[in-house]
Amino acid sequence: MAIPILLMFSLLFVASTASVQDFCVADLSQSDTPSGFPCKDVKKLSVADFVYSGLGVAGNTTNLIKAAVTPAFTAQFPGVNGLGISMARLDLATGGVIPMHTHPGGSEVLVVIQGTICAGFISSANSVYFKTLYKGDIMVFPQGLLHFQINSGKGPALAFVSFSSPVPGLQITDFALFANDLPTELVVATTFLDAAVVKKLKGVLGGTN
Amino acid sequence: MAIPILLMFSLLFVASTASVQDFCVADLSQSDTPSGFPCKDVKKLSVADFVYSGLGVAGNTTNLIKAAVTPAFTAQFPGVNGLGISMARLDLATGGVIPMHTHPGGSEVLVVIQGTICAGFISSANSVYFKTLYKGDIMVFPQGLLHFQINSGKGPALAFVSFSSPVPGLQITDFALFANDLPTELVVATTFLDAAVVKKLKGVLGGTN
Amino acid sequence: MAIPILLMFSLLFVASTASVQDFCVADLSQSDTPSGFPCKDVKKLSVADFVYSGLGVAGNTTNLIKAAVTPAFTAQFPGVNGLGISMARLDLATGGVIPMHTHPGGSEVLVVIQGTICAGFISSANSVYFKTLYKGDIMVFPQGLLHFQINSGKGPALAFVSFSSPVPGLQITDFALFANDLPTELVVATTFLDAAVVKKLKGVLGGTN
Amino acid sequence: MAIPILLMFSLLFVASTASVQDFCVADLSQSDTPSGFPCKDVKKLSVADFVYSGLGVAGNTTNLIKAAVTPAFTAQFPGVNGLGISMARLDLATGGVIPMHTHPGGSEVLVVIQGTICAGFISSANSVYFKTLYKGDIMVFPQGLLHFQINSGKGPALAFVSFSSPVPGLQITDFALFANDLPTELVVATTFLDAAVVKKLKGVLGGTN
Amino acid sequence: MAIPILLMFSLLFVASTASVQDFCVADLSQSDTPSGFPCKDVKKLSVADFVYSGLGVAGNTTNLIKAAVTPAFTAQFPGVNGLGISMARLDLATGGVIPMHTHPGGSEVLVVIQGTICAGFISSANSVYFKTLYKGDIMVFPQGLLHFQINSGKGPALAFVSFSSPVPGLQITDFALFANDLPTELVVATTFLDAAVVKKLKGVLGGTN
Amino acid sequence: MAIPILLMFSLLFVASTASVQDFCVADLSQSDTPSGFPCKDVKKLSVADFVYSGLGVAGNTTNLIKAAVTPAFTAQFPGVNGLGISMARLDLATGGVIPMHTHPGGSEVLVVIQGTICAGFISSANSVYFKTLYKGDIMVFPQGLLHFQINSGKGPALAFVSFSSPVPGLQITDFALFANDLPTELVVATTFLDAAVVKKLKGVLGGTN
Repeated sequence: MAIPILLMFSLLFVASTASVQDFCVADLSQSDTPSGFPCKDVKKLSVADFVYSGLGVAGNTTNLIKAAVTPAFTAQFPGVNGLGISMARLDLATGGVIPMHTHPGGSEVLVVIQGTICAGFISSANSVYFKTLYKGDIMVFPQGLLHFQINSGKGPALAFVSFSSPVPGLQITDFALFANDLPTELVVATTFLDAAVVKKLKGVLGGTN
Repeated sequence: MAIPILLMFSLLFVASTASVQDFCVADLSQSDTPSGFPCKDVKKLSVADFVYSGLGVAGNTTNLIKAAVTPAFTAQFPGVNGLGISMARLDLATGGVIPMHTHPGGSEVLVVIQGTICAGFISSANSVYFKTLYKGDIMVFPQGLLHFQINSGKGPALAFVSFSSPVPGLQITDFALFANDLPTELVVATTFLDAAVVKKLKGVLGGTN
Repeated sequence: MAIPILLMFSLLFVASTASVQDFCVADLSQSDTPSGFPCKDVKKLSVADFVYSGLGVAGNTTNLIKAAVTPAFTAQFPGVNGLGISMARLDLATGGVIPMHTHPGGSEVLVVIQGTICAGFISSANSVYFKTLYKGDIMVFPQGLLHFQINSGKGPALAFVSFSSPVPGLQITDFALFANDLPTELVVATTFLDAAVVKKLKGVLGGTN
Repeated sequence: MAIPILLMFSLLFVASTASVQDFCVADLSQSDTPSGFPCKDVKKLSVADFVYSGLGVAGNTTNLIKAAVTPAFTAQFPGVNGLGISMARLDLATGGVIPMHTHPGGSEVLVVIQGTICAGFISSANSVYFKTLYKGDIMVFPQGLLHFQINSGKGPALAFVSFSSPVPGLQITDFALFANDLPTELVVATTFLDAAVVKKLKGVLGGTN
Repeated sequence: MAIPILLMFSLLFVASTASVQDFCVADLSQSDTPSGFPCKDVKKLSVADFVYSGLGVAGNTTNLIKAAVTPAFTAQFPGVNGLGISMARLDLATGGVIPMHTHPGGSEVLVVIQGTICAGFISSANSVYFKTLYKGDIMVFPQGLLHFQINSGKGPALAFVSFSSPVPGLQITDFALFANDLPTELVVATTFLDAAVVKKLKGVLGGTN
Repeated sequence: MAIPILLMFSLLFVASTASVQDFCVADLSQSDTPSGFPCKDVKKLSVADFVYSGLGVAGNTTNLIKAAVTPAFTAQFPGVNGLGISMARLDLATGGVIPMHTHPGGSEVLVVIQGTICAGFISSANSVYFKTLYKGDIMVFPQGLLHFQINSGKGPALAFVSFSSPVPGLQITDFALFANDLPTELVVATTFLDAAVVKKLKGVLGGTN
């Protein structure tokens, strides 16, 4: 007997629940906004929208830096859209390095899963904070500051990193300076590097001008 | 003579006022975003977009809990979209109860308009804060914490509640656990309740599995 | 037998719960910060910190505007500190008026409890939105915009208003212009009012200079 | 030899950079949202989207207030959309005045480039803060508070103002009260001004009713 | 020769860098605020303030739930204060369960490091989203929603979870209902459970009343 | 006669105005918090707290970069604390350069007051946006991205820049890499630069190790 009465009660809440925005899985086919992508229709969602398996596969470290970054940002994992968090996987082969870089849009926490990693960041006051991290250690890198990770052990290293934004961004200093068409004279003028050094690195990283 | 000059002055500000976003009445026909719905064209707005009369009518309390929640969230009252606030009306017949629930997206303030209400919440540290409230009393329920309201008087009770979000959400614990298809074994495993208790409540609340 | 084991489990969470900031009841004896007052020690809190009875008493409307605003902001109700919400009570005797004002720090929702209120606001584009509100009607006033409430009925009116900030502020235009020592010549220069009008209102409202 | 290897490395980051939201230049053809306009396609952007020359031209001060405000908000300068900042240019001819006004959506910092400006604001507590500013002086006006700027020197004055929002809004008190169809009786009731004064100002500023 | 000149240049920036707030390591000896704890003196910081080793040790799972949560929130890891992120470690022995709970203050992302975990959450609309996760899978749990994790494999499981807040909170439903002095009659009234069930669970979990 | 009555009315608002937080001038003698410094007692404030004259004086450009940055952040101008905005002055002698740098905490808008400036930034996707700016031009630099300003004219140049934060920070890439004790081998490993280049720049910029 209670069921029909409770269903009626349930209906009273329908209007409410229809307006709830517990989450907002990104509809990447629409235009982005400053707060993130518009939401997919909640009626079309399933648990698959909240799970991502792309970090379960090691990145390819057969490259010059012997390292790989595999992101799970909004573009790869639309479920994090609007939720203020995202992840990435770092694979570092022996001798691997994640070069000096920043995340303009978020702070980062790294946890070492395997191996030994020397990680550090530099503050606005030019103070340096770096340390060798072992399995299970975590380290925080504040938003926007230059930082790096180096495999300082003898075997491969694996870490997962989390960000305080679903779109933290990633600006690798060397790529920003040498892997595009920013004129050599502007790089020289703004970095104190010699033109020869700039041109050499542009050559290595695919930059022009 | 002054008028034409001032109108010219007025025109100087046109570009400015055109870009002002004083408010953003929800256009519910478009996709939601993490910050709320896109805005209706300001030229189509009237005062009716900023007024809602749906809380003037008592909710139907002829149900098992002898209570009703009537929301004025973005879905019902698009004028609050993007403004960080919304309201709801609580009607509690004699013996009425708003069961244990949370609002994942906002804090709540309740004001008693009629009757006597026993209200309380539980902190993350499992501390309990509850009190009998009388006409004119207000109580605040911090975001995301379990709380409840019970008519502890002899006649009907009425309260208005306000939220720090236009889409605060509403998760009633019993409905989340027993009114859907979450398998009984998972409910048992995660709540310490016996399967028999779970199945009985699923029966009452319309749940399956 | 299970109890000791579970208590051990409970202890595992102690470190966690100790760091939880579910709420932050204002310690008004310390200096304010941009995000609100420092928190009272959670161990000294009771339910009384989350309940306020000051809105249960009608404000004194025996004054020129025949109206009273009774706030429950952080200063009166420290429990709302940091929670993004607060309330106030509006009492309007017959003919009572809440003069043109703004809340620099928050949006407002008003619910009419008794009587009839003509309320309105003006947008940045100088558009006017006003309406007569009856018992149970709610109206939203976006942050920072000029608005007013007038008792347009035959008896007293009562409303509760909620804000999207624990410290929304209240700037009554006439008080800002005429109830302080802002030199008459500056008021004249910035409002287009005659000096005589300014001086008269300064006289009425207690202003000088 | 290193180049092909590094290009491969570069490709590893493609997925990441594709999801980066460093900026969100407004696509004004779409509907606004509470966080700002949807973003223009990043592939269609050039440096022109981040530069605006409209503040390089003096505003026309041949009007009653002998002053002009030239905004660079999102509507004029879509590049600031979502970035929490915008600018405007203030030109004040001799005797020029920016009348009493508020910005509901942001705080302001003013820097004097030329001339002498008397600027001030009034707090919610009705305290007055005003001062004569000279070339190079800066002054901050907190969000939502009434403020003004007057050319108090002998020649023209120029200032640039910046806001903590790309859409700070601009509500000029006299325009809000007298330059629209807000009924004279409501203005009288909410400002303590005489109907004659109100009607006169409505006449000057183009208001009706 | 260049050095003295550049040092002078360096000095020009001293005032700037002194005001930079790149981070704000919590000084737990001071009162918390709504935005987090006051900052430790930057001159007393070292890299140890940004590294935490407490998650490198498995939690003790010799308890009824055969599981342990080891947090690295502000209280344990003051370096995350104000940075919008934190972490925790989940150890689940065979048959281990993290019971139904919410984090009132943040969203969560989980990554499986070892074993197999059945994880799920329930939306405000009472929709259920759950899935079996394997090594390397990640899942997001939106802020404030009920969720759980169960070791569904044959050996132990390990996961790291990250939160979009340095103080996400943790409210375990069973503990909130049964592990404190909330009167049995209030639990019964607000959960539809029988008094006998409530008293039994209070007995198991250490609750009174 | 009206005065005493109105004063009584005025008193009704005292409680309200006492709690208003229109602004929060930094008390630099207390510990900073994630939201900014605690507030100076409002009773001790004067207009001098909201005005700063330090940007009226040209910075000393007799240095290697022939440029100077003069900030008005919270440390120099406590009035901007908590208001989401700040400013700085850029002086560039002929040939002057503000080297490649980021502001981790805020976006920037620059307005050219005198001279000709070539300014640019680089996105996370390594796209370059740069342009020659003339008097009155404004350009926006999104938060956290590498950017630079070069005097590209024949005489001195002057610009004012505004930030979307009272503490935007300033990280000059060359200073972060070469002006501290970050070991040469770590700089080499994370930048692709030769040790000789690193050591030379460390020599020039005062770095060690």
